[in-house]
Amino acid sequence: MKSYTEELWFNTANRQEFVNITSQVEKAVDKSGIKEGLCLVNAMHITASVFINDNESGLHRDFMKWLEKLAPYGKDKYEHNVGEDNGDSHIKRTLMGREVVVAVTNGELHFGPWEQIFYGEFDGKRRKRVLIKIIGE
Amino acid sequence: MKSYTEELWFNTANRQEFVNITSQVEKAVDKSGIKEGLCLVNAMHITASVFINDNESGLHRDFMKWLEKLAPYGKDKYEHNVGEDNGDSHIKRTLMGREVVVAVTNGELHFGPWEQIFYGEFDGKRRKRVLIKIIGE
Amino acid sequence: MKSYTEELWFNTANRQEFVNITSQVEKAVDKSGIKEGLCLVNAMHITASVFINDNESGLHRDFMKWLEKLAPYGKDKYEHNVGEDNGDSHIKRTLMGREVVVAVTNGELHFGPWEQIFYGEFDGKRRKRVLIKIIGE
Repeated sequence: MKSYTEELWFNTANRQEFVNITSQVEKAVDKSGIKEGLCLVNAMHITASVFINDNESGLHRDFMKWLEKLAPYGKDKYEHNVGEDNGDSHIKRTLMGREVVVAVTNGELHFGPWEQIFYGEFDGKRRKRVLIKIIGE
Repeated sequence: MKSYTEELWFNTANRQEFVNITSQVEKAVDKSGIKEGLCLVNAMHITASVFINDNESGLHRDFMKWLEKLAPYGKDKYEHNVGEDNGDSHIKRTLMGREVVVAVTNGELHFGPWEQIFYGEFDGKRRKRVLIKIIGE
Repeated sequence: MKSYTEELWFNTANRQEFVNITSQVEKAVDKSGIKEGLCLVNAMHITASVFINDNESGLHRDFMKWLEKLAPYGKDKYEHNVGEDNGDSHIKRTLMGREVVVAVTNGELHFGPWEQIFYGEFDGKRRKRVLIKIIGE
């Protein structure tokens, strides 16, 4: 069995942002030399997500609006916000998910026609990490 | 290490539908010959889900009603809906999840008493796929 | 390839409760002897979750309030509640997630600075299980 580990760093310009990381994950699969296996990609911070969806800007705005409706930003809205203001970010990350697991087949991410991997930042403007772990053969 | 890959095809009669795929995943585990490992089951399309819950029709209707409340269908409700009408489907799939990872122990899906695997379709009446990838020994 | 399997049992005092299980999962990784691999932790019951977030009591109260708003308890609120009263619990578990997959690197859970693993109970006061499955080398 082979394994491969890589951390990606982010520092987004905005508090909330989606970043397409598909090509970075593809490069990691290449570097791993793994032909058949599983690839875990997860946010290492608890106010950020990794998720798979469409690379379409209208949809991304829909997601952001929907998240704001379900978990609005606000210093006085969350008990967590004592000296912090990211209560909403923890909930937004929960809705979008911490991680994805993607199959590796014939040395490539085994994707459907529109699948793309995104980093979802909900409390940005600081350095944060994503982990890629691939195991297989 | 062994690995096994299989794609399942669906073409649901309704726009939204839940399909129990537990026995199909069990057959894949049998065919794989893997006794100890991990089994990934994921939707390959970004308006569909794979999730684990109860095989009970009242609960399935509860889920559908709840999803409609949180992400209602509507051509004019989403920026994504330019020439499309499935903005709600992308969000519904996010709520129900893209994938499940299930342990394989002694050659079987290692399940609790009520766990069943479902394909969740939110933009159906067309051919779409689910991926099963099993690795282990 | 090595594999390791362990079931944890819970019987919470309250209907809804979050239990920090990080140290139990760390012990399982130790016992497995696995240095590089993937660790699956999942609820074996369909009204319970396993999720990763912050170990902060204010945030946990925020999560509970938010879940109650999105999927309120009520015998007459769900079609599933024929002879049962846990329709809300199935939906709450869906929002928080069934499982997490965590990388194992150098014999340890490969975590960011604040990641902790929680068991989320939404229909407690009875014996229920969590599964830990680790594969790797």
